[in-house]
Amino acid sequence: MLKHPDAQIISLGIGDTTEPIPEVITSAMAKRAHELSTLNGYSGYGAEQGEKQLRASIASTYYANVGLEEDEIFVSDGAKSDISRLQVLFGSNVSMAVQDPSYPAYVDSSVIMGQTGQFQKDVEKYGNIAYMRCTPENGFFPDLSSVPRTDIIFFCSPNNPTGSVASREQLTKLVQFAKDNGSILVYDSAYAMYICDDSPKSIFEIPGAKEVAIEVSSFSKYAGFTGVRLGWTAIPKALLYSDGFPVAKDFNRIVCTCFNGASNIAQAGGLACLSPDGFKAMMDVVGYYKENTQIIMDTFNSLGFKVYGGKNAPYVWVHFPGRSSWEVFSEILEKTHVVTTPGSGFGPGGEGFVRVSAFGHRENVIEACRRFKELYK
Amino acid sequence: MLKHPDAQIISLGIGDTTEPIPEVITSAMAKRAHELSTLNGYSGYGAEQGEKQLRASIASTYYANVGLEEDEIFVSDGAKSDISRLQVLFGSNVSMAVQDPSYPAYVDSSVIMGQTGQFQKDVEKYGNIAYMRCTPENGFFPDLSSVPRTDIIFFCSPNNPTGSVASREQLTKLVQFAKDNGSILVYDSAYAMYICDDSPKSIFEIPGAKEVAIEVSSFSKYAGFTGVRLGWTAIPKALLYSDGFPVAKDFNRIVCTCFNGASNIAQAGGLACLSPDGFKAMMDVVGYYKENTQIIMDTFNSLGFKVYGGKNAPYVWVHFPGRSSWEVFSEILEKTHVVTTPGSGFGPGGEGFVRVSAFGHRENVIEACRRFKELYK
Repeated sequence: MLKHPDAQIISLGIGDTTEPIPEVITSAMAKRAHELSTLNGYSGYGAEQGEKQLRASIASTYYANVGLEEDEIFVSDGAKSDISRLQVLFGSNVSMAVQDPSYPAYVDSSVIMGQTGQFQKDVEKYGNIAYMRCTPENGFFPDLSSVPRTDIIFFCSPNNPTGSVASREQLTKLVQFAKDNGSILVYDSAYAMYICDDSPKSIFEIPGAKEVAIEVSSFSKYAGFTGVRLGWTAIPKALLYSDGFPVAKDFNRIVCTCFNGASNIAQAGGLACLSPDGFKAMMDVVGYYKENTQIIMDTFNSLGFKVYGGKNAPYVWVHFPGRSSWEVFSEILEKTHVVTTPGSGFGPGGEGFVRVSAFGHRENVIEACRRFKELYK
Repeated sequence: MLKHPDAQIISLGIGDTTEPIPEVITSAMAKRAHELSTLNGYSGYGAEQGEKQLRASIASTYYANVGLEEDEIFVSDGAKSDISRLQVLFGSNVSMAVQDPSYPAYVDSSVIMGQTGQFQKDVEKYGNIAYMRCTPENGFFPDLSSVPRTDIIFFCSPNNPTGSVASREQLTKLVQFAKDNGSILVYDSAYAMYICDDSPKSIFEIPGAKEVAIEVSSFSKYAGFTGVRLGWTAIPKALLYSDGFPVAKDFNRIVCTCFNGASNIAQAGGLACLSPDGFKAMMDVVGYYKENTQIIMDTFNSLGFKVYGGKNAPYVWVHFPGRSSWEVFSEILEKTHVVTTPGSGFGPGGEGFVRVSAFGHRENVIEACRRFKELYK
């Protein structure tokens, strides 16, 4: 921006939503806000775990087919906060596996909790973390036979940043792997509503998952709630520590001690998201970003790049074989004034890739693609 | 409720606000909610540390006289969440001092972080925590000469539950004590707006405090934001670890990794709270609860009880010498159907006391006091 003060910079970098929240949802939040100034509509502290009606609505909307119940849902101020609360639950003396590449919050919170060893500069990895390499060669699903046993496995599908989604068969293997190892699987499904094929939208669609998995999710990328802050974590009653104690009871203690519930206004918004009209409106927002994704994929495909993700996620993972992802990032920024994200920011496995996010106004996405075509024609 | 299904139970137990949020504040939140459904008004992720304007407004409203700046304020979803984020900052290998009695979140979060030793049933204390006894005899300010050195000191003034406020002279001693010991003082000022004498409203009014103290505060008890969720933590740039590294930089990393900012709608509410009209409206809410407090104090005084707190805090701390606080709690509940809080829930130093909260509708407070008078006449 210093070099080119007049440049029209377009950000397809961090995955920040750009489209307005549907009015049926904001109206519900405004209504709740107004009610708080009335004697009958006022409410103070809510349940730390979330309002009963919202928990029930999340359970019936997303988990009816797998039989999760209201009291297995913990409403939160977003997936990022809940990942850290889960890390507090796990404590410092656990070992961890993550997809490589993956959303940085898993590793970053692990470092903060003191779970990791030293950062090894030569391989760009922290000690005591198992990096499960996800590449085009293995279909972005790790070769589990080469993954060591860890206490915790973080797994995100549809994946940020690769945009790939794990199939039912792959997730069945993953659940079995966790079960065999006595690992807890933390499944991040924050992009599940972008899935348009028959891949599982929840880990709990996999038989036996309730005994090994926790699912973290969010309204951020569905309804544009990145600033409103609302998410949830599902912990089945059937998930037990090896001594038989329910993990959900322990997490409940964390939630009640370290958190005081999501904003009641945001919760009113969440409830509106799950009403018939709200849900349809959310799907329209998701559909808009999916159209953006298609435009970006078509662009890079037409330029002869190998492009991954996109189909079931709002991220396009573009391969620049043999090149440094920071170098490509800089080249794109310098020459097209479009911000992307260098793949190596998501772990060493992201080297050679750039993530292009589909969160943007349509005209900006089209203009960015026009510039990409000019640069790489 | 099972025993007396028709009883009109009045809760003066947990400190939950009951009065509507002033309309000037809820209107601002409703407006922000509506704006989120417009192209120009929409915003996604905000700064994890809070919106610049709100940080500036908190700094100028509460800290202009002590010279704290905007970038020393971290906006949060409430004091309880920030206490736990501070505990994550401190880690497991620290020692801790707390007032006894005190708000349970300090000890509870300390236990969860693994800072404490075993619970010693005979004294009702956790190992590795220094309990600083606060009694009528010492004016509810601990005898610092008998307090061992700890890494961290939690201190709440006006105090929950005793309602007592520390004087400038006492806080000067406390700051000196922290400085002499190389301790970090975490000062909880969530009730500061209830102070009506010349006691300090912020620890930073004490010379030298910026080099030893962090201040945690909240909109919950000022504007009725217990359900809306908004607070802040002030960390001066002058607060350094012994190796010279700024504590604020470390906390910034925690906030950016483990949190994604308070809800933008709640932040719009916070900004409205600090507008001239909003501030006046907040002071009216505080004034309402202060009148409640006076009614409760007058009642127990007229019945011959020794009553503490109340003047500068919304809590009345009633002494029942020689009696178990749980027994008194049960007696009051059984015979008057009023919920109070047994003092021992705040630590062993709370034994023999009951906390009566002034958060309630006026007619309920008056009715509760009528029943107290009947029971203890």
